[in-house]
Amino acid sequence: MTASALKLGMVGGGEGAFIGAIHRMAAALDGDWRLVAGAFSTDAGRNGRTGTQLGLDPQRVYASFEEMLEGERALPADARIDAISIVTPNHLHAPMAIAALEAGFHVFCEKPMAMSVAEAQAIAQAVDRSGCRFGLAFTYSGYPMVEEARARVARGDFGKIRLVQAEYLQGWLSQPIDTQGNKQAEWRTDPARAGLGGCLGDIGTHAFQLAEHVSGLRVESVSADLSIHVPNRRLDDDVSALLRFEGGARGTLKASQVAAGEENGLKLRIHGERGGLEWAQMEPNTLTLRWLDRPAEVVRAGGPGLQASTLPLLRTPAGHPEGYVEAFANLYRAFGAAIRGTAGIWFPGVPDGLRTMKFVEAVVANAASAQKWTSIESGENE
Amino acid sequence: MTASALKLGMVGGGEGAFIGAIHRMAAALDGDWRLVAGAFSTDAGRNGRTGTQLGLDPQRVYASFEEMLEGERALPADARIDAISIVTPNHLHAPMAIAALEAGFHVFCEKPMAMSVAEAQAIAQAVDRSGCRFGLAFTYSGYPMVEEARARVARGDFGKIRLVQAEYLQGWLSQPIDTQGNKQAEWRTDPARAGLGGCLGDIGTHAFQLAEHVSGLRVESVSADLSIHVPNRRLDDDVSALLRFEGGARGTLKASQVAAGEENGLKLRIHGERGGLEWAQMEPNTLTLRWLDRPAEVVRAGGPGLQASTLPLLRTPAGHPEGYVEAFANLYRAFGAAIRGTAGIWFPGVPDGLRTMKFVEAVVANAASAQKWTSIESGENE
Amino acid sequence: MTASALKLGMVGGGEGAFIGAIHRMAAALDGDWRLVAGAFSTDAGRNGRTGTQLGLDPQRVYASFEEMLEGERALPADARIDAISIVTPNHLHAPMAIAALEAGFHVFCEKPMAMSVAEAQAIAQAVDRSGCRFGLAFTYSGYPMVEEARARVARGDFGKIRLVQAEYLQGWLSQPIDTQGNKQAEWRTDPARAGLGGCLGDIGTHAFQLAEHVSGLRVESVSADLSIHVPNRRLDDDVSALLRFEGGARGTLKASQVAAGEENGLKLRIHGERGGLEWAQMEPNTLTLRWLDRPAEVVRAGGPGLQASTLPLLRTPAGHPEGYVEAFANLYRAFGAAIRGTAGIWFPGVPDGLRTMKFVEAVVANAASAQKWTSIESGENE
Amino acid sequence: MTASALKLGMVGGGEGAFIGAIHRMAAALDGDWRLVAGAFSTDAGRNGRTGTQLGLDPQRVYASFEEMLEGERALPADARIDAISIVTPNHLHAPMAIAALEAGFHVFCEKPMAMSVAEAQAIAQAVDRSGCRFGLAFTYSGYPMVEEARARVARGDFGKIRLVQAEYLQGWLSQPIDTQGNKQAEWRTDPARAGLGGCLGDIGTHAFQLAEHVSGLRVESVSADLSIHVPNRRLDDDVSALLRFEGGARGTLKASQVAAGEENGLKLRIHGERGGLEWAQMEPNTLTLRWLDRPAEVVRAGGPGLQASTLPLLRTPAGHPEGYVEAFANLYRAFGAAIRGTAGIWFPGVPDGLRTMKFVEAVVANAASAQKWTSIESGENE
Repeated sequence: MTASALKLGMVGGGEGAFIGAIHRMAAALDGDWRLVAGAFSTDAGRNGRTGTQLGLDPQRVYASFEEMLEGERALPADARIDAISIVTPNHLHAPMAIAALEAGFHVFCEKPMAMSVAEAQAIAQAVDRSGCRFGLAFTYSGYPMVEEARARVARGDFGKIRLVQAEYLQGWLSQPIDTQGNKQAEWRTDPARAGLGGCLGDIGTHAFQLAEHVSGLRVESVSADLSIHVPNRRLDDDVSALLRFEGGARGTLKASQVAAGEENGLKLRIHGERGGLEWAQMEPNTLTLRWLDRPAEVVRAGGPGLQASTLPLLRTPAGHPEGYVEAFANLYRAFGAAIRGTAGIWFPGVPDGLRTMKFVEAVVANAASAQKWTSIESGENE
Repeated sequence: MTASALKLGMVGGGEGAFIGAIHRMAAALDGDWRLVAGAFSTDAGRNGRTGTQLGLDPQRVYASFEEMLEGERALPADARIDAISIVTPNHLHAPMAIAALEAGFHVFCEKPMAMSVAEAQAIAQAVDRSGCRFGLAFTYSGYPMVEEARARVARGDFGKIRLVQAEYLQGWLSQPIDTQGNKQAEWRTDPARAGLGGCLGDIGTHAFQLAEHVSGLRVESVSADLSIHVPNRRLDDDVSALLRFEGGARGTLKASQVAAGEENGLKLRIHGERGGLEWAQMEPNTLTLRWLDRPAEVVRAGGPGLQASTLPLLRTPAGHPEGYVEAFANLYRAFGAAIRGTAGIWFPGVPDGLRTMKFVEAVVANAASAQKWTSIESGENE
Repeated sequence: MTASALKLGMVGGGEGAFIGAIHRMAAALDGDWRLVAGAFSTDAGRNGRTGTQLGLDPQRVYASFEEMLEGERALPADARIDAISIVTPNHLHAPMAIAALEAGFHVFCEKPMAMSVAEAQAIAQAVDRSGCRFGLAFTYSGYPMVEEARARVARGDFGKIRLVQAEYLQGWLSQPIDTQGNKQAEWRTDPARAGLGGCLGDIGTHAFQLAEHVSGLRVESVSADLSIHVPNRRLDDDVSALLRFEGGARGTLKASQVAAGEENGLKLRIHGERGGLEWAQMEPNTLTLRWLDRPAEVVRAGGPGLQASTLPLLRTPAGHPEGYVEAFANLYRAFGAAIRGTAGIWFPGVPDGLRTMKFVEAVVANAASAQKWTSIESGENE
Repeated sequence: MTASALKLGMVGGGEGAFIGAIHRMAAALDGDWRLVAGAFSTDAGRNGRTGTQLGLDPQRVYASFEEMLEGERALPADARIDAISIVTPNHLHAPMAIAALEAGFHVFCEKPMAMSVAEAQAIAQAVDRSGCRFGLAFTYSGYPMVEEARARVARGDFGKIRLVQAEYLQGWLSQPIDTQGNKQAEWRTDPARAGLGGCLGDIGTHAFQLAEHVSGLRVESVSADLSIHVPNRRLDDDVSALLRFEGGARGTLKASQVAAGEENGLKLRIHGERGGLEWAQMEPNTLTLRWLDRPAEVVRAGGPGLQASTLPLLRTPAGHPEGYVEAFANLYRAFGAAIRGTAGIWFPGVPDGLRTMKFVEAVVANAASAQKWTSIESGENE
């Protein structure tokens, strides 16, 4: 932790939750942030226990999000939290983000940004009004080799991009665990808390954000098939989509949470006129480049040949694996740097959030239609 | 070569051609076949040189396919060829296959089966009329671990199948080599010789056949995007498709010949309720099985745990890699066994050919339409 | 950080050093530790800057290790540091560790433990006398899949162990960077600061510790070849050794810092009567098990089939890679738990340190001898 | 098969034998050879059945090796066999090879060359006297990517070679199958038929030959540990060795037939001043090159960047795997070309055989000694 460690509050993430703990590790890793306040659960006992386990001042373990806003605003400026991490189910993202921004706190929010494009736009407006920073946990963008990939595409290493293939395969929802007490599964398959998309919103958005971020290209239209494989489930657990990018590149996006036996198989492949790249999240420190006219190259985190923009995202020498928490920590570090006003490292935020919400709505519209293509921007079937 | 080696004639495959040489190695490997006649090229010099290099009796190196049929029929029954391998461009498959069948020769034909469903049906009728055998070079079906995969799906190891993902990525047509003297590329991009599909017909059909063969499920309808990335090319060089299978499984099919830097990336993944499998042609002796409730397994050619139907397809102990020619030889061996009437090993033939031609026509129809889905069987947009 | 976060002081690890920063991240990750004091460098400016960057109270940024001991002892018991991390070059380990222990501080020390067996024994005696805890940074022992491997060997999954192969390949000392200003390289190749072994002490010890830890077997004797490949270097940069284990298992150990192009290739393979295992540090979340009578299994961090003792070492679900810092953090967590007296998780300490120092001395003795075998315990050539 | 197909006789390789069938496929693959005679087994029934299955003229299925020599010599020069493949247990190699050579037949012999250095030298003299060709089945030398590796080392891509690591891990002798009816295991563990080495002679020789062939360096001295892990076995089933090469390179060699669960894990790694290479037989079409100053490269059979001497060893385009039989066929092709006197492609022969026999004797001598090093050339302990 540094002299100037920024002060963080958290909403959600009580004991037993997965992603809240990850946010806390990510924030702690580099010493840039210090968690000092939280409203971890609406269950008072769980909330208190979480605060105690985390060693927080009991005065700053708040019974509710609203009380946290109020309590922190009442503190002297140099004592109060700088930012709030929102790690709740999706339906709370927009109201909480807007309230936090309006209260003058920077916001780091879990994805997807919101329940709808309209909500996402409302957040975007609140960001503009408040002058605060808004970060979005598109965690995979924080991996060094994702930046390496992006920078090489942008530099034109592969020539004009022709193909983009994004996939994200999980198997953990292969059985009806959402009706058997698994809380993570429960809200993710509940339209009231998850939104329009199930698998689509939860991980399809990651694949989409990564595809656009690394290719540097926008998807213009989508043709999609949503399906539900586990009986009585109310939201899609499997997504397949064809993508048409600006400039003529074609793509596919596959996301599934019923690919039984798969773990967290996010993979991106991009091909241009002269070669292509492949990156897979489960071996994140490797980026494979293939070429028409010479042998494939294996670019490695910490190894020779990296782009300048990749270097600041590394903590260890080559061969000492950095993982998911480190990628996440890169986002917190960049978000913190933005708040401090130091030289900017990119982090995902409003533009990524808006695009992914438009993607969700376009896929849902297309899947319900007999028309082949739906525009991402307009949401119109074509 | 065995006492009872069957006698083979070949049309096409003159010096410099790729696939003819592969057929010859595959036929020779196990000694089941002996090449004794050929009409390798319409260029007399090239034809003669090929025959000489192959050590054929000059009397049986024929100036044309028709002369081969005539010449061989004039020989005593025990001297004449048993079967003809057709390794020409696509537009010649149907007329030659039908003529050969009608002349009483078994036929082993390169894929795709024909230029259209109608042609494929005409071949099918000729097969029925002649009582001869018809094999089709869906080579990848000959790999031992493909059979292992098929048998495990059929046995129900994974439960009901939900997802099928087939992909076939090549990069060799990334540049306009079809207009720069590459003969292989030239005819494959010429509608008059290749048919309705470019990449679609050449390798999309492999991916489709493999998907149906291993899953044991038929695709009911398809939604597809065909594209041409190299200017002035007349046939698709890239295919993306969404698949709906009977029984509710969903699939994707991706085939490309402009995935610059890719070699021969045919890959199949299938997931059911309890687990899934992955097989990749470039490491063909490995089949990976993943499970919801236990660690992934790596089944290996020649290793423990193989299905009974896989064993006859192996020649070497575990760890001694068998490759593409061996897979091909498995088809020739099964084709030969069928001719001899010995206990049958499956090999791809008329049913595979018909299905893939219907797939080609359905994709072409769908890609030209604004409707989302096209039926494989009827070819109608839905 | 938790209410009960333990307070850490650090000696060494000033700005620019590699391993000090890793220790700080590892200590911070789970909130179990809080760095509150340090003597980072004998260069006053560097020391001060490091303290400032880390946000320490300037009163607790000490000019020397001795002043830190004195200053911290002068503080009230509940304010002073609980433990000291020693991240200096090797020659300082023993004097500092002994002084810290005698001053009543727990010690977490970089490896190798000391410059000699005698020094290591002196530390061991100080540990005994002080009643303090002593942890040793055999980091790779902290990986979850290393524990999985150890537990499976101990359970007898593979039957009697016959073969152990440990290797650790790096390439970073392939050029004479030790004479060109690289500080990391400089002291590691200086006998006065590194000790008897170069590559042997720096990474050979890691391979040896891992081999004994996972196999559960002690090496009885060693036959070794030490070599220096970069001219004028004074300590070995390459080690090869044959190992004989108690009970008859045979092993090999290979460590090199001149394997040009290799990163941090620590790999362990163990085979018993019925099967074997393979673990590689650069893909640490995978453990491959191979069997005589069934397909290989791929056990994955966070996946199904893990041993009970592996589970506490995990932070993320399957497929979210954990890396080097997380493995390191597992040691800090276990070290902290031991200090707090909560239920014990194993961490490497005095026994590992003593064994590895005996190994270093035995290899050096053997390499200088014409006798084939040297006893690890007695150091005698046999 | 070509007009000029060479005529082959075979001794050994009756039905059920492994390596004889491989030799026949390898000889048949490219049509360069035609099997026309054989003495497959001393069991008359088995011999006859093998001949029938292979479609041989019964007159040329001989009851014994001696009858084959006699029978074939009695035929007109243009009818008799050109060469004899010896695929018997080791103890017959030398007497048969010498007799065949003296009878004027070229010889292609299984490895190891003989039972001793003395026998190998006797063969070498017979080769010289006869003017016939002698090929030795160091099969792995026939892989295209082994040649690629050799050519790159020879060209100096890696600078001066410093490290060579050869390993060959199998698990098939983990249980006492040699006393349970497995014929392959039986003679390989019988000193009277296998020679001085068990695992050492059977596969250790492969690893040694590959190490010297690819590195282009000779091993000067060896320090070794031989062990027997299966009770009552009479020959080593596990070998570990340290190697010192001319010019200062250091090496390790590990071979085992009790590495339970391993298949046919032959692997070679070589490092020089600037980079290194890795090749593994189970994925033979890939050669990985790693560099100090740039990303690793993956050179692929059929892909871009290959050396001129690699190209003639390929049959298929990139991504169409060639395997063990194809590597073997490359040796037969080169052996045939040498007999025909066409431009020479290298194949393993007398020099490889002599070196490996010296290696076997040196290892056996060293393992029985308390001295550390034994000279390969002189066989003296040093």
